[in-house]
Amino acid sequence: MARGKNVLVAQSGGPSPVINNSLRGVVETCRKMPKRFGTVYGGYHGIEGVLREELLNLSAQAREEIALLRTTPAAGAIGTCRYKLKAEQQEDFERIVEVLRAHGIGYFFYIGGNDSMDTARKVARLAAERGLDLVATGVPKTIDNDVGDGEFRLVDHTPGYGSVARYWALAVQNANEENAGSSPSDPVLVMQAMGREIGFIPAAARLGDPERDMPLLIFLRESRLSLADVADAVNDMLKRRGRALVVISEGFDVGSVGARKDAFGHTMFSASRTTVEQVVVNYLNEVGLAARGSARGNVPGTDQRHHMIYASTVDLEEAYEVGCEAVRIAIRDGSGYMATILREPGKAYRARYDKVPLDVVANSERVFPAAWIAASGTDVTDDFVRYARPLIGEAWPQVPLVGGLQRLARLKPIFAEKKLPAYVPQAHRKPSRRK
Amino acid sequence: MARGKNVLVAQSGGPSPVINNSLRGVVETCRKMPKRFGTVYGGYHGIEGVLREELLNLSAQAREEIALLRTTPAAGAIGTCRYKLKAEQQEDFERIVEVLRAHGIGYFFYIGGNDSMDTARKVARLAAERGLDLVATGVPKTIDNDVGDGEFRLVDHTPGYGSVARYWALAVQNANEENAGSSPSDPVLVMQAMGREIGFIPAAARLGDPERDMPLLIFLRESRLSLADVADAVNDMLKRRGRALVVISEGFDVGSVGARKDAFGHTMFSASRTTVEQVVVNYLNEVGLAARGSARGNVPGTDQRHHMIYASTVDLEEAYEVGCEAVRIAIRDGSGYMATILREPGKAYRARYDKVPLDVVANSERVFPAAWIAASGTDVTDDFVRYARPLIGEAWPQVPLVGGLQRLARLKPIFAEKKLPAYVPQAHRKPSRRK
Repeated sequence: MARGKNVLVAQSGGPSPVINNSLRGVVETCRKMPKRFGTVYGGYHGIEGVLREELLNLSAQAREEIALLRTTPAAGAIGTCRYKLKAEQQEDFERIVEVLRAHGIGYFFYIGGNDSMDTARKVARLAAERGLDLVATGVPKTIDNDVGDGEFRLVDHTPGYGSVARYWALAVQNANEENAGSSPSDPVLVMQAMGREIGFIPAAARLGDPERDMPLLIFLRESRLSLADVADAVNDMLKRRGRALVVISEGFDVGSVGARKDAFGHTMFSASRTTVEQVVVNYLNEVGLAARGSARGNVPGTDQRHHMIYASTVDLEEAYEVGCEAVRIAIRDGSGYMATILREPGKAYRARYDKVPLDVVANSERVFPAAWIAASGTDVTDDFVRYARPLIGEAWPQVPLVGGLQRLARLKPIFAEKKLPAYVPQAHRKPSRRK
Repeated sequence: MARGKNVLVAQSGGPSPVINNSLRGVVETCRKMPKRFGTVYGGYHGIEGVLREELLNLSAQAREEIALLRTTPAAGAIGTCRYKLKAEQQEDFERIVEVLRAHGIGYFFYIGGNDSMDTARKVARLAAERGLDLVATGVPKTIDNDVGDGEFRLVDHTPGYGSVARYWALAVQNANEENAGSSPSDPVLVMQAMGREIGFIPAAARLGDPERDMPLLIFLRESRLSLADVADAVNDMLKRRGRALVVISEGFDVGSVGARKDAFGHTMFSASRTTVEQVVVNYLNEVGLAARGSARGNVPGTDQRHHMIYASTVDLEEAYEVGCEAVRIAIRDGSGYMATILREPGKAYRARYDKVPLDVVANSERVFPAAWIAASGTDVTDDFVRYARPLIGEAWPQVPLVGGLQRLARLKPIFAEKKLPAYVPQAHRKPSRRK
C-alpha cells in the first residue's frame, strides 16, 4: 500500500448540483490523513487536465473554500470534460501514466459514470503494467441515474439524481400554479427534462404530485409513444381538465432534432438544431388544441443540474459520504472498486455505503424499470414514487448568501509545477474530427 | 363613499412570483375593515371570470390559506387571463357593470400592467355613467418593469420585477459554474430571458456579476445588434476567456421566429415556432466557434417567473404593501388611481408608497434608459446595477415545505351564486379569430 503518496481526483461528464460534494469528501478525507496521503491534486477539466499536466493543488486551498464546495454547484471548481479515452488512444493512456508517475500519484479517484469507471479501470491496469503502484477508485456521479444495474443491487442510485429529481418535483409544483393561472391563454405548458436515454429525470416530476391532483402528463422516451399519441393524450387532458402540464424527455422520439454529438458519441440535446419541446409545441399548435389558446414550453436545460437551491439535502449528504467512502475503500480494499450507495431494507429510508468492482459496473447497464411506466404510457407508477421520494429529502438546503448573492467556493489557480514536455491530447490533434 | 359594499379583485396578464402577495394585501386589508368592506370576491381568471360571473369568494377562505398566498407563485389561486377588452366591445363593458351591480360591488381592485390600468379606468367611467358607485383602483404588476414613465418619477419599479431580477442574478451565478466546468465541450451557454420589448430582465443578469469577473455577455433587444454582431462578440470572448455566457432577450431581433400573438397583439415568444436562443445557438454552431465544442442553450421560459424560491424578499414585501396601499387609496382618495412604489432619496434603499391617476399611467410609456446600455451593446452599466441591486434583497425567502414539497395556498371553489343569465365574452364568440 502506498504511504504518503500524492492523490489525483478528477471528474468527467456532465456536472450535478452535488458533484463538488463528492470532491469535497475525497479532499477532506485525504487531508485528515497526512501520513498516508501527500498532496491532493485535481485534474483540471478532468482527464484533459491530466493529459496536459494541469494539476490543481487542492491541498493548498483554504479549508473554508473546500468547505464551500458543499453549496457550489456544477463543476466550475476543478472542471470536467467529455474527452473520450478510446481504446486505440494508446499514447493518451501512456501519457496519463507518465503524468501520474511524474507527480508521485499513488491514488486516483475518478468521479463519473459508467464510461469514467471504464477509464479508471484501464488506467489502473496500464499503470500496473508499467510498474506504477496506483490505487484507482471510482466515485459515482450522474444525474441520469443510469449507473449500475437494472435491479438496483449493485447501486441503488447515484449522487446527482436526487437533486435533479427535487428540481422537477418542486418545478412542477410551481409550473402547475403558472398553468392553472394562465390557462385561458396558455392551456398547455410543455417542459423538457434531461436524461438522454433513460427516464428517471422526467419521471421525478411525479414526485411533485404524488396524489395525481394536477393535469400532469409524463412522457418518457421508454414509453415508445408517437407525437400523435402525445397530442391525443394532451387533448384528452384538455377535455377533462381544461389545461395540461407536459413533462417530456429530451430524448423522446419525435424524429430528427438535428442533434449534435459529444466526443462519447452521446447526443447533446442542448446543442441540437431544435428540441423535443419545440417539436411538441409546434405539433400541438398545428393539429390544434381542444381548448382556447396556445401550447407553450420551457427548456430548462442545464438549469436543472446547476440550480444549487434545488439540491436535495439527502443527495448532498450522500454525495459527500460516497466521496469519503471511496477514500476508505482505496485504503482498505486497494485498487479497482467504485464506492456505491445502497438502500437498507425497511420502511424508513437509510443509505448504506458499499463498493463494486470497476469492471462490473463498467459493463453493467441500468434501464428504467418497465413496470414503473404506467399502462397509459403517460405516467409512472407509485412504485417509482416510493423508490425516488426519499432521495429528494425534506428541507431546503442552506445555501449561503453574501450581499444577496451566493457565496461560492473560489479556488486559487495554484497548479503543480510541470515536469514533462507539453502534450496535445490525441483527439485534439485533428480539430475537425470533433465537429 | 360606499360603506359595507362588496369588493372585487382581479388579475390580468402574465403572473409573477409575488402577484399573489398583492392579492393577499388587498384581501387582508379589506378583511380588517368589515364595516367598510363586505365580501371580497376574486374574478376567476380575471376579467374573463367577471364576464362569466365567476366570482370566487375570498372572504370564505381560511385565513391560513390566504396567508400562504405569500409564498404561492404565479396566478393559480384566482387565475389570470389575457382577455383584451377592446374599446368596441361595448357589450363586454356593459356586462361587467351589470355583474358588479348584481353582486353589490363597490370596490374594484385590478392587478396588472398598463393595459389593465386602461381597462380599470374604462370600467370605472362606464360604471359612473350607469349610475353605479364604484371605486376602481389599480395595483401594479409586471415582471418586465414596463409600467410607468422612463424617468422613474411616476413609478420606480413594479412588483414582480425584483423577483425575476433575483432569478437571473442567481441563475447566472450557477450557470457560470456550469459553463466554467463544462467549457471543454460546451464553451458557450446561451440563456433566453423574458421581457418582450424591454430589457430590464436580461439586464438583471449583471446583478449576478457586478464586478464583471464572468465572461458574461448581455444582449438587450434595445442594443439593435445583429446576429452577426452577437457571434462576433461571443468569439471575441472565447478568444479572451475560452468560454462565454450569453443572456439574450426573447425579443432580440434575429428575424422571424414564427411568433404567435396573444389577444393583446403581444408576441408570445414561448409559443413561437422557434426561439431566439435556438436561432443564436444554431448560428454560432454554423459560423463556428473560436473554441473547441458547441454552443448550447437554455430557455427557462415561465420558470423565471414562477420559481418561488427565487422571489426577492424586498419584492415580496413591496408587492404586499402596494396591495394594502391600494385599499387605503380607495378609501382615502376614491376612484381612479393606481398605487405606486417610489424610492426615497438617499444612499440606503427605502421604498415609499404613493399613487398615480389611472389615465396618466395608462398613457405613460417606459423604456429601458439608453444610458444604461454599455457602449459595446453587450452589457449594461453600473447605473443600472445601482438601480436594480436593492430590489433583489439579501436573503432567501422562507418557502414552507411539508413532506418535502412546497405548501402552497389551496383555495376552496366557493363561488358567488350566479344572478345573471349566462354570457359568452364577445371575443370568444368567434373562436377562429383567436388563432
